Amino acid sequence: MIRTISDLQKRDLNHVWHPCSQMKDYEDFPPIVIKSGKGIYLYDENGKQYIDAVSSWWVNLFGHCNERISTALANQAFQLEHAIFANFTHEPAILLAEKLVEITPDGLSKVFFADNGSSAIEVALKMSFQYHMQKNKQSKKRFLALTDAYHGETLGALSVGGVGLYNQVFQPLLLDTVRVQGPDCFRCPFNEKPNNCNTPCITAVEEKLKLHHEEIAAIIIEPLIQAAAGMKMYPPSYLKKLKALCLQYDVHLIADEIAVGFGRTGTMFACEQAGITPDFMCLSKGLTGGYLPLSVVLTTDDVYEAFYDDYQTMKAFLHSHSYTGNPLACRVALEVLQIFEDEHYIKQIEEKSTYMKELASKIFQHHPYVGEYRQTGMVGAIELVKNKETKEPFPSEERIGYHIYQIALEKGLLLRPLGNTLYFMPPYVISKKEIRIMIGLTHESIQQYFENVQNSKVVLEVE
Amino acid sequence: MIRTISDLQKRDLNHVWHPCSQMKDYEDFPPIVIKSGKGIYLYDENGKQYIDAVSSWWVNLFGHCNERISTALANQAFQLEHAIFANFTHEPAILLAEKLVEITPDGLSKVFFADNGSSAIEVALKMSFQYHMQKNKQSKKRFLALTDAYHGETLGALSVGGVGLYNQVFQPLLLDTVRVQGPDCFRCPFNEKPNNCNTPCITAVEEKLKLHHEEIAAIIIEPLIQAAAGMKMYPPSYLKKLKALCLQYDVHLIADEIAVGFGRTGTMFACEQAGITPDFMCLSKGLTGGYLPLSVVLTTDDVYEAFYDDYQTMKAFLHSHSYTGNPLACRVALEVLQIFEDEHYIKQIEEKSTYMKELASKIFQHHPYVGEYRQTGMVGAIELVKNKETKEPFPSEERIGYHIYQIALEKGLLLRPLGNTLYFMPPYVISKKEIRIMIGLTHESIQQYFENVQNSKVVLEVE
Repeated sequence: MIRTISDLQKRDLNHVWHPCSQMKDYEDFPPIVIKSGKGIYLYDENGKQYIDAVSSWWVNLFGHCNERISTALANQAFQLEHAIFANFTHEPAILLAEKLVEITPDGLSKVFFADNGSSAIEVALKMSFQYHMQKNKQSKKRFLALTDAYHGETLGALSVGGVGLYNQVFQPLLLDTVRVQGPDCFRCPFNEKPNNCNTPCITAVEEKLKLHHEEIAAIIIEPLIQAAAGMKMYPPSYLKKLKALCLQYDVHLIADEIAVGFGRTGTMFACEQAGITPDFMCLSKGLTGGYLPLSVVLTTDDVYEAFYDDYQTMKAFLHSHSYTGNPLACRVALEVLQIFEDEHYIKQIEEKSTYMKELASKIFQHHPYVGEYRQTGMVGAIELVKNKETKEPFPSEERIGYHIYQIALEKGLLLRPLGNTLYFMPPYVISKKEIRIMIGLTHESIQQYFENVQNSKVVLEVE
Repeated sequence: MIRTISDLQKRDLNHVWHPCSQMKDYEDFPPIVIKSGKGIYLYDENGKQYIDAVSSWWVNLFGHCNERISTALANQAFQLEHAIFANFTHEPAILLAEKLVEITPDGLSKVFFADNGSSAIEVALKMSFQYHMQKNKQSKKRFLALTDAYHGETLGALSVGGVGLYNQVFQPLLLDTVRVQGPDCFRCPFNEKPNNCNTPCITAVEEKLKLHHEEIAAIIIEPLIQAAAGMKMYPPSYLKKLKALCLQYDVHLIADEIAVGFGRTGTMFACEQAGITPDFMCLSKGLTGGYLPLSVVLTTDDVYEAFYDDYQTMKAFLHSHSYTGNPLACRVALEVLQIFEDEHYIKQIEEKSTYMKELASKIFQHHPYVGEYRQTGMVGAIELVKNKETKEPFPSEERIGYHIYQIALEKGLLLRPLGNTLYFMPPYVISKKEIRIMIGLTHESIQQYFENVQNSKVVLEVE
């Protein structure tokens, strides 16, 4: 495929180092220059339209350039763009904190602000650690995390991550995390089915806790969906048991709802489905509807009080970022939460996700290279396998996802798969018709890939 | 002092956990609720005006709610608020990268985006480390940093920090950083004067490098001003020698210009004054003129090329944040750089800083409790001491800075000292008249504090 490179593409490649990218890939596949966005669509410099089926890395909720959110942001920019947040405060932060406390599980009463997901994870890890130090539990210096977990990129967050692709090379810089095998429903070693299983996989956690609980400050988890791992999904009952184990062994539970919060799993927060309250809940991404970096860590009175003392005791949590509590981002987040209410989005998600699941299951479930179509709320995932019977995966060096991604982009669909897993995590403004188109284009792209592969094989055989 | 607490203050205290704060302090000194900002002023819910002499944690450059910046932000909000930045790009990011490469020291050619200062530091540390691994220098796993350094709050950034107040409690979670005594011009152990010294303190670095260079990936430094340490200032010659040592010992130089970049030291970047190009330059804070969280790491072709290879070699830098390259923040940053040019701010800073220095020196230099008034560019610092001769500091438990801070706030001046050091780092839009007022109110606040202390001592003696 020969591409002409535009002036802006060339200028981009001169100076921009893109995230999570082998820049050499951009030689053959130069970055697409986006000019504007509207609803579920992004438009490139040639006017070509792309369905943003991944909500631009899982952040967008109510469409690009949403009228209400953009207006709220513009207004705030002429009122108060930012103010120092130590000893100072402002209405957008106060109202947002109140609202978040109201809609998150009971018992989460305090809100600490940060700028991005990684920073929120670091805040939760540091708070949990310092809490135990101040409770005279000096041995609690480690964290427990699941295999295939992803919690961000800064060294603390990376330390609790379990995806080797991201953290293998950095091992010498990382914390010595206690790692435990997480749920793996698609290839369940216990041969259970997620819908009515007894989550025997939780015993792995129990065993680790029995051995290590005196060293462990907190368990960190992505509730219901291990997203970066390839949208691995597991049932709420696992979370319920996990919470019970945390209580039993005096270990904090950190719920990383950065990817799954704000309706993605069908409920406002994934923890709701298990009826649990974690000790820390980290939120970001959808918090601002895909507009601006902002994150929060919600925690309990119990945690807050362990830091609340006379200044001289030096028990304060002296963490800060310059833009903590940024009024622009807080105002945007308030508008997002108001849209959720005004337009009954939890109800809309229920209807749209039911439609998406029925249609996608019908189309993909019996595809010869689809190991499983799974869906939780508005997150749908197609796991491609080499062998449907044995569930043998395609070797990662074939980069199947990457090739299908390129085909889909040609067709005006932005998928960005995770390894062999294609997934849908569209903005909630998507219509049923657009869901049909998104699924249809995905199916076409998969078909085209395998036809090309087969054709090229045929060609090779002929040669 | 008895204060009435407003409804918003009460609601804030119910749910907001403020950064870098002992929340118990807020019982006596509740957070000030800011309603709006304009120029160098913030306005609280009662209409009271505060001069923002610290640029809201060193971020604001051209005043609160700057007309040009707010307009640029509002327009971008209706064009493209955000798009995934892997394989995608957009004009604001491209133009910003070009501009940053143009204005930073020669040799910095590639721009990696992140969201806040801490994340930028983590990117630089990770890149430097991975670079050496990919160059088969597996022993280079440690970083060298100065005493009293501050580089942020995430665990990697905190590891290279040297201010015990922030990282002491977290020691068990931190990297084993090689620490070296940094310059300390106010209490110079060599009895040199910064203006014409031969920087003998650099030998401490040289000695550490001789011993440890094979283990060290990078040296990280805040050029010219160790800000969080209490605005400790040192001459450019130190940086020049440091760069030479880095070359000699095959160690990267990471310049953390998060606080000092964008004109604060009188030049656009502090490194300019030493005529050096670091291997990594981290920028944030002023990058968006105090509007939004955004950071960048600039680096060299040499570093970029060490990661540039076929995908299968797994040499890519797989770091990302959801909002990497956020168009709203990039557009704001572009407007900030345009204002610098259009309104000749480097020239303005020269004039205003000269004025500030003359006036402040005259007023503070001979004050019985001022050990030193020092200034670099638009950053002026008053270091209070118990004994002017011996330079004996006030004990930290007296919280002198905090008490003067409270007095100044009463007078409508936001100072937020660092320990015993009061400082000015005002937005560049400040006028000469406003500089006079800022300095005058600071002097009054200092006087009032010491008079109160002396009065209360008298009272105690009478009792």
